[in-house]
Amino acid sequence: MSGERQPGVAPQSQVYTWEPSNAAIAARCGLRAQDILRFDTNTVPLPPAMLPEALRGPFEPSVNEYPDSSYAEVTAAAAAYYGVEPHELIIGAGADEVLDLIAKTCLPMGTAAMVPIPTYAMYGVLTGQRAARIVAVPRLGPGDGYALDVPAVVAKLPDVHLVWLCSPNNPTGAADSSSDLEAVISAAADLPNAPLVAVDEAYFEFGAKTLIGWRTRYRNLVVVRTVSKAFALAGARVGFGVADRSVIERLERVRPPGSVSTISAHVAALALRDPAYALANVAALSAEREWLAAGLASRGWTPAPSTTNFLLVLIGDPDAAERAADGLLHAGIVPRTFGPANPLRGHLRLTVRSRSENDRLLEVVERVSR
Amino acid sequence: MSGERQPGVAPQSQVYTWEPSNAAIAARCGLRAQDILRFDTNTVPLPPAMLPEALRGPFEPSVNEYPDSSYAEVTAAAAAYYGVEPHELIIGAGADEVLDLIAKTCLPMGTAAMVPIPTYAMYGVLTGQRAARIVAVPRLGPGDGYALDVPAVVAKLPDVHLVWLCSPNNPTGAADSSSDLEAVISAAADLPNAPLVAVDEAYFEFGAKTLIGWRTRYRNLVVVRTVSKAFALAGARVGFGVADRSVIERLERVRPPGSVSTISAHVAALALRDPAYALANVAALSAEREWLAAGLASRGWTPAPSTTNFLLVLIGDPDAAERAADGLLHAGIVPRTFGPANPLRGHLRLTVRSRSENDRLLEVVERVSR
Repeated sequence: MSGERQPGVAPQSQVYTWEPSNAAIAARCGLRAQDILRFDTNTVPLPPAMLPEALRGPFEPSVNEYPDSSYAEVTAAAAAYYGVEPHELIIGAGADEVLDLIAKTCLPMGTAAMVPIPTYAMYGVLTGQRAARIVAVPRLGPGDGYALDVPAVVAKLPDVHLVWLCSPNNPTGAADSSSDLEAVISAAADLPNAPLVAVDEAYFEFGAKTLIGWRTRYRNLVVVRTVSKAFALAGARVGFGVADRSVIERLERVRPPGSVSTISAHVAALALRDPAYALANVAALSAEREWLAAGLASRGWTPAPSTTNFLLVLIGDPDAAERAADGLLHAGIVPRTFGPANPLRGHLRLTVRSRSENDRLLEVVERVSR
Repeated sequence: MSGERQPGVAPQSQVYTWEPSNAAIAARCGLRAQDILRFDTNTVPLPPAMLPEALRGPFEPSVNEYPDSSYAEVTAAAAAYYGVEPHELIIGAGADEVLDLIAKTCLPMGTAAMVPIPTYAMYGVLTGQRAARIVAVPRLGPGDGYALDVPAVVAKLPDVHLVWLCSPNNPTGAADSSSDLEAVISAAADLPNAPLVAVDEAYFEFGAKTLIGWRTRYRNLVVVRTVSKAFALAGARVGFGVADRSVIERLERVRPPGSVSTISAHVAALALRDPAYALANVAALSAEREWLAAGLASRGWTPAPSTTNFLLVLIGDPDAAERAADGLLHAGIVPRTFGPANPLRGHLRLTVRSRSENDRLLEVVERVSR
């Protein structure tokens, strides 16, 4: 019924509603908003300790003025953290806006984009908004770790102008292998129209390899990063695209001059300059993930391997998953569910949260899995 | 050379650079960044006094979580301030994003939008980005207060899917008369395809009448508002569209779920709930505008009447305007200029700033206007 950036209706229709607020869920379930625990949004449990100090400013320019449209301060901080030059970066209001800039650049009307599924719903939404066609290619099954079906993907490359990849993949949780990724990107690069390959690395910090180092070798590659996950700043809305300068220049042509607030840019700059807390989040949540996975498994649910801060959990048949979701929800725990048409309809996706919140989850699972 | 959201190249080309930062201007003119005074961005001189307290939070949801995609708190505050229902409002990352949502909704490829010129450059940029055609209709001349050429506008309505109006108009400074606006909106409403009329009221608080009350009478009207001007929060990036529910529902289909940060949404909510400081800004800057206009006039420059926080100033022939701009710029004062192809090329646009900043402006004008 709800999920991180989960459209309520099929993406192609361009009509969708986003996930409800705690207040809306509480009202529906007869609970209080403060009793709702969100296991559906893949955020980390606490904001950074530096946030109150960062919000004291000073802001440059001050908040009565428009932001610096080049976002020089935060771009320099991100470039240093990612190990690239500032001109190899583009900023957006969250990774979502970077994805939108990619769609705007690559998908004029009548074009097509490839989406290996299941994956983050936004790729299909943005493709549909451009009146472009979605070429869906199923990933392999759970026995193969939901890996890319490389021959199927490569076979469809000549038909598309853009390939949406997500590694580690949401909602399946595993990263794609470097060899699979390189097979796709290099095959795309060899084509006359060289479709752009966007690789969304939102969950990179949780243990994946990054493709940022390939940006000069493959000038049809753009890597998307965010401060929403490991950096615990989803509410600040700051994301980046990293690519060869030629790709960044194309994307800059459609970037609005001031979509990121001066305040968020400053907070993100301080976070990226001192990323130790993000790495601590990763270490803690990775350990917690394994603890939670074991707890779920001992209660009869089957989590897939993950290098993210969430678990894709096989519950059973679609009815069992629906009953489980209802049971969780009425105890104030919001899982990410998969609709009747989704190949993952027997699953739930659960964010790894704090120990006390995960404990509460396991107590409820104990009850609803009986 | 620079201006508020002024594209560096013609909008249609979709290649543009936004206004440079203080640091970039300082480097070019051999000055220090702190010596640059921006008279080109139409912002107010100081951020709101409530800002530091507003930035202490608490934020709901906390900043590690995604924003409430319905932005219920700030939408309720804006609805109360504008005197409308929350479902008659849409939020964006600044008025600029609201304009983009309007373009996305009304301008599929092959369509056309009318732009009475001169006006805010973004309308042309957004139209060009949609691969839609711009139907430019000149406004009347300075003797007629740059009023809309209503017969010319009405004659072109059947050719377009969207009309971009700005009242008070930037950069000319006067509001359109209610009768002119109603003539255009009602003529559009009577057409079989009823093109949407977007009326950008960014400068409304400085003394114009709002068209918000017409939203139910004209279901082809959307009014655009912002906290960037009178509310002194340009760096927070929060704007709104106000329209009949049926129009808002169309725009909501293409709104990204989280382009506004939780922090900015909270700050804007507090500002809109207690708008006294914005009205005080308006009163002070309106008086200051008349003082500055008199000072400019006594030095031989000719400001047009304005109901905004800026003045369109006739300097003389294009060479005189260019010399004046150079003289200001090398004294650290950044005016909005108009390129060689612009009908306003003998003019500069100057923001009304604080008394001490306006004093410095007049000192430099005294020198460069000799």
